[in-house]
Amino acid sequence: MNLDRTHDAAVKSWLASANLPHGDFPLQNLPYAIFRRKGYAEEFRAGIALGDQVIDLAALLRERCLNGLAMQAAIACTQPALNEFFAMGPDAWRILRQAIFALFEAPTGNASTMPDTDVLRRCLVPQALVEYSLPARIGDYTDFYTSIDHARNIVKLLRPDAALSPNFQWMPIAYHGRVSSIGTSGQQVRRPLGQRLAAGRSMPDVSACARLDYELELGIFIGVGNPQGEPIPVTHAEQHVFGLCLLNDWSARDIQMWESTPLGPFLAKNFATTISPWIVTMDALAPFRHAWERPADEPQPLAYLDAPANRSEGSIDIHLEVWLESERQRTNDAPATRLSRTSFRHQYWTVAQMVAHHTVGGCNLNSGDLLGSGTISGPTAAEAGALIELTAAGKTPVALGNGEARSFLEDGDTVLMKGWCERPGFTRIGFGENRGEVTPARAVS
Amino acid sequence: MNLDRTHDAAVKSWLASANLPHGDFPLQNLPYAIFRRKGYAEEFRAGIALGDQVIDLAALLRERCLNGLAMQAAIACTQPALNEFFAMGPDAWRILRQAIFALFEAPTGNASTMPDTDVLRRCLVPQALVEYSLPARIGDYTDFYTSIDHARNIVKLLRPDAALSPNFQWMPIAYHGRVSSIGTSGQQVRRPLGQRLAAGRSMPDVSACARLDYELELGIFIGVGNPQGEPIPVTHAEQHVFGLCLLNDWSARDIQMWESTPLGPFLAKNFATTISPWIVTMDALAPFRHAWERPADEPQPLAYLDAPANRSEGSIDIHLEVWLESERQRTNDAPATRLSRTSFRHQYWTVAQMVAHHTVGGCNLNSGDLLGSGTISGPTAAEAGALIELTAAGKTPVALGNGEARSFLEDGDTVLMKGWCERPGFTRIGFGENRGEVTPARAVS
Repeated sequence: MNLDRTHDAAVKSWLASANLPHGDFPLQNLPYAIFRRKGYAEEFRAGIALGDQVIDLAALLRERCLNGLAMQAAIACTQPALNEFFAMGPDAWRILRQAIFALFEAPTGNASTMPDTDVLRRCLVPQALVEYSLPARIGDYTDFYTSIDHARNIVKLLRPDAALSPNFQWMPIAYHGRVSSIGTSGQQVRRPLGQRLAAGRSMPDVSACARLDYELELGIFIGVGNPQGEPIPVTHAEQHVFGLCLLNDWSARDIQMWESTPLGPFLAKNFATTISPWIVTMDALAPFRHAWERPADEPQPLAYLDAPANRSEGSIDIHLEVWLESERQRTNDAPATRLSRTSFRHQYWTVAQMVAHHTVGGCNLNSGDLLGSGTISGPTAAEAGALIELTAAGKTPVALGNGEARSFLEDGDTVLMKGWCERPGFTRIGFGENRGEVTPARAVS
Repeated sequence: MNLDRTHDAAVKSWLASANLPHGDFPLQNLPYAIFRRKGYAEEFRAGIALGDQVIDLAALLRERCLNGLAMQAAIACTQPALNEFFAMGPDAWRILRQAIFALFEAPTGNASTMPDTDVLRRCLVPQALVEYSLPARIGDYTDFYTSIDHARNIVKLLRPDAALSPNFQWMPIAYHGRVSSIGTSGQQVRRPLGQRLAAGRSMPDVSACARLDYELELGIFIGVGNPQGEPIPVTHAEQHVFGLCLLNDWSARDIQMWESTPLGPFLAKNFATTISPWIVTMDALAPFRHAWERPADEPQPLAYLDAPANRSEGSIDIHLEVWLESERQRTNDAPATRLSRTSFRHQYWTVAQMVAHHTVGGCNLNSGDLLGSGTISGPTAAEAGALIELTAAGKTPVALGNGEARSFLEDGDTVLMKGWCERPGFTRIGFGENRGEVTPARAVS
């Protein structure tokens, strides 16, 4: 674990809202987003979350609060996408993190190093007053399939006569996804139309998706790419990763069932993907690493997917939750319903293994590329990351607690994802939230 | 068929090389590429092929040869990618085509309209002296699977107990491909490493692909996109398409066999895709449209895939050929070997149907997005668009005519694709060529 002073739980910020006990954005987190003030015709640019504020890096530069490589890194952050900052690499990321940490930590009595908080306060924008755009120009989006519990649940539900695909335990399976329809939290997702084959019919029809689902995933932003033809070794893979966000891989199950043979999901997934605005850096996640275990009676990873560091701390213990807020709950100001909770540490393949596998054939990744982890389902039924698993393909609806129940998503439903890391001795860090709302389908024309 | 004077075979150019009988680039073609002079540190920009020259649109602007909307369109063409020009839409495309046609047509005796050919000659760059980049910033790349002959061949070879997937005759099947590894003609393609499961083994190994293949496809460039959630009706679909190029969907068959269940091809396809530099416009292809026929005993298209114009002229008769030049042939200056020839008119689904299906669920296309047609194989064995079909999965190698034979591609092989349209009464137009060379794999580390 690569820990430094920025992980020290004893250090507090002079900004009170950063020190709240269950906050997502303490001084030890410092995630990145692309933001601007709502209602202003100003440029989108990078900011860092601290407490209930956004640290405006462009303002820090104007106020001459940064020097050297930290200043260079912040200059890259004045762009409307993080790609250039990503491409600067891990040293630049860490130096800017340390510089921001130093500016916003509470003074320890040594007046000569005390930051001028009046100046710094002018560089803050309340999160309540900003809007976000995508954090990067995403060149390619790849969606993995790396939870064995999810894979087993799906096989059991949809192909009870079949077994887990034999390649699952040998490689992190993935397919390419759609970039154009990725949106940030708050995305309105129109229920898609599409071809479906109704049970017992031989001829499909076109109608609104009747089995609309979410999938709980983490999004993985590539920081530094690789040249075409040059694989990234698993030992170096995490140096190419900038950080993680929450990702909802909206899925139209009825469309998916009919279209996916033989080339995989297409329209069932490409109408929308929603990511949370804040990217939590791999640096911030360092204290929450976890051993990656492969039971001795299961296939051991091939050499290009194996490394001592991957075994000792390849997993990350990120607590994840999915909530649903129905239109009726929202109208009545009733609480939303938690549908499930799990942890990313159960994932069968690690982030480093995904990157190494993706590039083993020479495929080039670029700064700003997005990987989806695949649905994150834990080992118990209550830890499932999609409605299709929680409701046994719609047969056992989940109760929302207000008399409503859901087999699949209904119009007006908001899906809300949250994530955070906690560990004794360290400061809790969070991902913020990822919301998306289902809006009614168009009429079939 | 939307024909105008730019399709009149009687009109010749004052540029002699544009009038050669079997040339690809007569006045009636006028395809677009992004180019610059080789060895100059100048910006990439758009050019139009005419004979053996490139018409430099930036130079035409400097020489004040264009006015009005044609000038506006040419200004968009001074960018290093065609996306902005694409977004201007079919009226702008047609107006610039007509303006270029008028400048380069041979004078008919009316001196007052005679262009100043000395000025225009200064706006030409020999094709032999230029290099190309990708014609557009490709936001997303989608690969279709729309040849029923290819699909039937593949099923017969790989799953002889299985039938054609039941959805094939109801929808143009597709999956998302990789943008980052798309290159232009001349691309050097390193043989990929990857996991393969050898026959009779239960444990995969990692080695260089032993069954490297090409796939003959056409690339379809989206001109005008659609907003997310708003499908493009099949009746309007072609107005969203700018034009076509040749596309080689390199495929690692052994990697593909092992990885593709359940989510489709991934590393087997994402190491490289090669496209030809010249985009032949839908305008230029207008004389070569062909009726699209669906036999009465096969499923008829659902309403969102059906339209009178699609039936009367939805197909395009594009003659296509694949050639292989081995390293030995190249060294000995021996002729390359033609592996197959076919026509795009056999395709089971049309370009308009691909666009309509892609967007029916609300997926948004953007200017510059690329669609692959899927492998183009005709009804006879000799018309197959991939080696796996021509060699019965490697069992019946094809002879190159110089003593060499190929089951799959070998290092040093160059795959060359050509395409053109011919029809009595009209001027032949061509696509230029699409070359890609196989280079040896990296050592397994």
